[in-house]
Amino acid sequence: MNNFLNDYKDFGNREIYEKIEKIFDKNTSGYGKDEISDRARELLKKEIKRDCDIEFISGGTAANILATTFNLRPYEAVLSAQTGHITHHETGSVEATGHKVVTINTEDGKLKPEKIKELLDSQSEEIDVEIKLIYISNTTEVGTVYTLDEIKEIYELAKENNLYLYIDGARIAHAMAASGVKLSEIAENCDIFSLGGTKNGAIFGEAMIILNDDLKKNFRSYMKQRGAMMAKSFLIGISFETLFEDGLYYRNADHAYKMSRILVEGLKEIGREPLFGESNQVFIKSSPEEIEKLSEENIFEVDNKKESIIRLVTDYRTSEEEIKGFIEGMKKC
Amino acid sequence: MNNFLNDYKDFGNREIYEKIEKIFDKNTSGYGKDEISDRARELLKKEIKRDCDIEFISGGTAANILATTFNLRPYEAVLSAQTGHITHHETGSVEATGHKVVTINTEDGKLKPEKIKELLDSQSEEIDVEIKLIYISNTTEVGTVYTLDEIKEIYELAKENNLYLYIDGARIAHAMAASGVKLSEIAENCDIFSLGGTKNGAIFGEAMIILNDDLKKNFRSYMKQRGAMMAKSFLIGISFETLFEDGLYYRNADHAYKMSRILVEGLKEIGREPLFGESNQVFIKSSPEEIEKLSEENIFEVDNKKESIIRLVTDYRTSEEEIKGFIEGMKKC
Amino acid sequence: MNNFLNDYKDFGNREIYEKIEKIFDKNTSGYGKDEISDRARELLKKEIKRDCDIEFISGGTAANILATTFNLRPYEAVLSAQTGHITHHETGSVEATGHKVVTINTEDGKLKPEKIKELLDSQSEEIDVEIKLIYISNTTEVGTVYTLDEIKEIYELAKENNLYLYIDGARIAHAMAASGVKLSEIAENCDIFSLGGTKNGAIFGEAMIILNDDLKKNFRSYMKQRGAMMAKSFLIGISFETLFEDGLYYRNADHAYKMSRILVEGLKEIGREPLFGESNQVFIKSSPEEIEKLSEENIFEVDNKKESIIRLVTDYRTSEEEIKGFIEGMKKC
Amino acid sequence: MNNFLNDYKDFGNREIYEKIEKIFDKNTSGYGKDEISDRARELLKKEIKRDCDIEFISGGTAANILATTFNLRPYEAVLSAQTGHITHHETGSVEATGHKVVTINTEDGKLKPEKIKELLDSQSEEIDVEIKLIYISNTTEVGTVYTLDEIKEIYELAKENNLYLYIDGARIAHAMAASGVKLSEIAENCDIFSLGGTKNGAIFGEAMIILNDDLKKNFRSYMKQRGAMMAKSFLIGISFETLFEDGLYYRNADHAYKMSRILVEGLKEIGREPLFGESNQVFIKSSPEEIEKLSEENIFEVDNKKESIIRLVTDYRTSEEEIKGFIEGMKKC
Repeated sequence: MNNFLNDYKDFGNREIYEKIEKIFDKNTSGYGKDEISDRARELLKKEIKRDCDIEFISGGTAANILATTFNLRPYEAVLSAQTGHITHHETGSVEATGHKVVTINTEDGKLKPEKIKELLDSQSEEIDVEIKLIYISNTTEVGTVYTLDEIKEIYELAKENNLYLYIDGARIAHAMAASGVKLSEIAENCDIFSLGGTKNGAIFGEAMIILNDDLKKNFRSYMKQRGAMMAKSFLIGISFETLFEDGLYYRNADHAYKMSRILVEGLKEIGREPLFGESNQVFIKSSPEEIEKLSEENIFEVDNKKESIIRLVTDYRTSEEEIKGFIEGMKKC
Repeated sequence: MNNFLNDYKDFGNREIYEKIEKIFDKNTSGYGKDEISDRARELLKKEIKRDCDIEFISGGTAANILATTFNLRPYEAVLSAQTGHITHHETGSVEATGHKVVTINTEDGKLKPEKIKELLDSQSEEIDVEIKLIYISNTTEVGTVYTLDEIKEIYELAKENNLYLYIDGARIAHAMAASGVKLSEIAENCDIFSLGGTKNGAIFGEAMIILNDDLKKNFRSYMKQRGAMMAKSFLIGISFETLFEDGLYYRNADHAYKMSRILVEGLKEIGREPLFGESNQVFIKSSPEEIEKLSEENIFEVDNKKESIIRLVTDYRTSEEEIKGFIEGMKKC
Repeated sequence: MNNFLNDYKDFGNREIYEKIEKIFDKNTSGYGKDEISDRARELLKKEIKRDCDIEFISGGTAANILATTFNLRPYEAVLSAQTGHITHHETGSVEATGHKVVTINTEDGKLKPEKIKELLDSQSEEIDVEIKLIYISNTTEVGTVYTLDEIKEIYELAKENNLYLYIDGARIAHAMAASGVKLSEIAENCDIFSLGGTKNGAIFGEAMIILNDDLKKNFRSYMKQRGAMMAKSFLIGISFETLFEDGLYYRNADHAYKMSRILVEGLKEIGREPLFGESNQVFIKSSPEEIEKLSEENIFEVDNKKESIIRLVTDYRTSEEEIKGFIEGMKKC
Repeated sequence: MNNFLNDYKDFGNREIYEKIEKIFDKNTSGYGKDEISDRARELLKKEIKRDCDIEFISGGTAANILATTFNLRPYEAVLSAQTGHITHHETGSVEATGHKVVTINTEDGKLKPEKIKELLDSQSEEIDVEIKLIYISNTTEVGTVYTLDEIKEIYELAKENNLYLYIDGARIAHAMAASGVKLSEIAENCDIFSLGGTKNGAIFGEAMIILNDDLKKNFRSYMKQRGAMMAKSFLIGISFETLFEDGLYYRNADHAYKMSRILVEGLKEIGREPLFGESNQVFIKSSPEEIEKLSEENIFEVDNKKESIIRLVTDYRTSEEEIKGFIEGMKKC
């Protein structure tokens, strides 16, 4: 079977397990206050090149809850694209903390400054919530990628309006691979972002990079309260230490991206144009019949709420053979 | 000045104060457990003609919070038109209880069964919230009115899908005046509704009519928790007793509606077509210059977020002179 | 019947209704942005003698919710005496906003600085909530009253620890009558307090006096969100205007206090020692038999959860005859 | 160094990693809907011997949030011992969902039926929250263990009062080792419980065992909303599969318990009486001087808020040498 199901269907990079083996009999402190996590922090800070706090979080939804709502007053709200992960994939998790998510419809999953400005201008005093934080995901849920200039423009607008900018980086590795934007450039252009491990080779877990001083103090208390601070947080620490000590994180994402380019080219060659195939998530319109046929030898997700849309995800383990296999299968249909 | 500002700019019907005067020196129990409130309940039940619990609530936003969220589990959500009062006029009050409001765009502020069905079908398991309650307002925020058949269809759909239907009746008196629908017919076709007093002659306050048994038990505990149970709840009780003992509630709304018809006719005669002028809220496009001029002799709200839209509200005290005055003023512009 | 049920069993001072009568046909703006409310604010500010924001709130529970939780971060908490109104009389209303109420057991319903300090010292980092606001009620729920020095000491401690001090003043009029403390002295020694109207002659409603700048901005948005901003807020405004234009507020409370002194003396004379009878709430141990007998000619609340404790409340309308009647009745038992 | 810091200072049982190695190159489904997790479920069900749903949760705080609040209405509350983990070790996590935790003071961290009954009887209608769920932890936070009869009595009381009983089983393995109670007996006597993995050899994670039908439907939606459903949930699945396929879970806990008995005996022999040393957490009073000296060769937690209390935790890897080392060290002091 060629497996394009998602980018977290594996146990993570073998190198992490090898590192665990080396210190298997040692004892470690809990809750992210351990020397492994500290080493991971140091490695990350070298590339971030900006003063920051770094915490390790159990998963992406938890990371989004924490980052979007940590410093909001009760009447403050989050702004997101209609397709944002926090609006349709996390079961109302932000609202569950008491805060509204105000959405903007987009063509491509990316927020644009002019649309944000228009929305801010349309809000009324007192009877509307106050937008306080802008949420963008990079890569987006439809597989598109922000350019550095696009992020900069949104961050400028955020600062002008005294808003925070949070980047959901569950797949930021793939966004960097696709756009060439560096980690330090991401860090220069937002207040807080998550750096996804789960979807790029970690055993599991995300790093939260907190840049704006307003968002630092007592962030760990909020982590604890929301059940996102792991007793064995060193497991996330050792994942990030391994991923960042010699560039494994980037190699993983570069491979996934390269495979996605081969996939996109292959699809185009057989006359199939992907919808927004800019990163390691490639979406393509299909039909129930084709899906049935393809499913015999391929694994993928289908969004058949409105149309039959296939999602193909490449990751650090995807092989050219799998891609060829899929393209061949599609040709036959 | 001709005053079309809103329908709650007054102290309420004089008859209520006369009734207060009669028992001014008596003492009463608190929290709605008094004989005045009980008499009001009896009068209401005669017209509702269906087994129900009735509680008196301090105001409309509080009523909406209570009714929409009382019986929801954490992952359940409210469905509303994009224009719904709970989405843009109550500062994220539903989300503040932890529940998402999912919205549908409409032309006229009214939810339609087919659109609701489409939305329900598009929700995914586990990662999307579960819609559990449909919120409609009648009259709507744009001044439109549901027909009895329209409400019936929505209620059918709600029952088929195991959802609750709540009708925000802040202006239900005016809706009944416009549509001819009776209180008992409203009560037959929803699970819970508010019966607005504030906007139709009460000193202040709303009655909550709870029809579905699921929503009755311990509703008062929730009222108390949310600060919506008034110590001197008998003030609301005496308002509703007065309004319902000989039809004052209906006379108030009929007058407001009649005045709104005269206003709409007057506007049409001078070539100005109201947007959705179906009830006692009449909206009309204007211009900054016209608004400035009109404001010299008239009081009204302006929504100038996008366009210069004037809102003219008639109530039980509006006079034909005020309307003539306004029309004359507009003619001059 | 002699009625000691509570201090909100009436329609409020007649003077307020007389003032309403004078402007009955006028129109007013909603939501506390009206000239009546502004006049009330000016009258209050004259006595508060400190820069402040003043908002009018529908009731005491709503006032407590708003004041205790407005500016808290998710992991921050409220400190209260175990007997505090927010812990046992408001159905978990503070917790419903997401914040823990940490309690201290007291003998007399009053928080003491040393006990507060002890509790603050016992809290652990990260795994415990962070106390951010101290809640005291004055008069307390057991009828005791803080001296000015006691309040000052708590406020000093609050400032040293970067905490807010909120005084729940539902019965602050009676506390001032009992202790001789002035409104300006209250205002000098806390960050925010409520000034109760409901229990001292207003038609209904409370004033919120916001002194600390941190708590001012967008307080109205929170009021709106929690359903505590009344459309006809001018009803509260006109109550406070009347109560404060020539000292009616103080006369009301002085009368209630004087009556409570006569009651306490009368009880002592017949050998019955009240529990904490320092203000207009007098508690006295009784027995089921006595209660049954007394109830024939007197109205009062009984707390019979553990013991048969009678609560006798005097207010601005209580007469000496009622007190004599009660004492006579008790003598007979 | 002899390490008694906690029971989650390690990477987990080697056997789990060996199992991972065997299927390292395979792909797996996410979110607990995978065949590994299903095998773990089957193994657990064999021992639980009662119809149940089983979900895998990222950590203990998350598990407690989910289980205590899943099915509560807004005005409902949780009952816990004052020492309960949810009251002082989870940063107000239950209150953050909107629900009050009502506490009972205990001598030994264990709730007693008579005390629960007394508290239930003391609650007032409407103004108090309604207790709906009883939370007990086993082992408790002070290291005590419930007998089967004690649990049965509480469950009987819960059922009589229409309450749920949740057992926080973060250290239930150690409780079973200490008391001889079986998993099926736990399952017979509560509505829901967590089965801790983190503190007994799992890589990380807890199993939630849902027995009462009321608590089953859509539990996964709540997991997702609270960020507690892991993308790579199969990591928890493989831990539980390994732990339960041939009794490793019990062997782990039996060893920890045996070591704790040796520790307790050793302490007694040198004249030091532990506070509640019933399970693998042993608490003992010390002094700042002794703690400083002991810390040279031993690692442990100190609670020095009030007194210098040392916590010594044994786990599945603790050796007799470590215990001897500690006892020797203490003798010298």
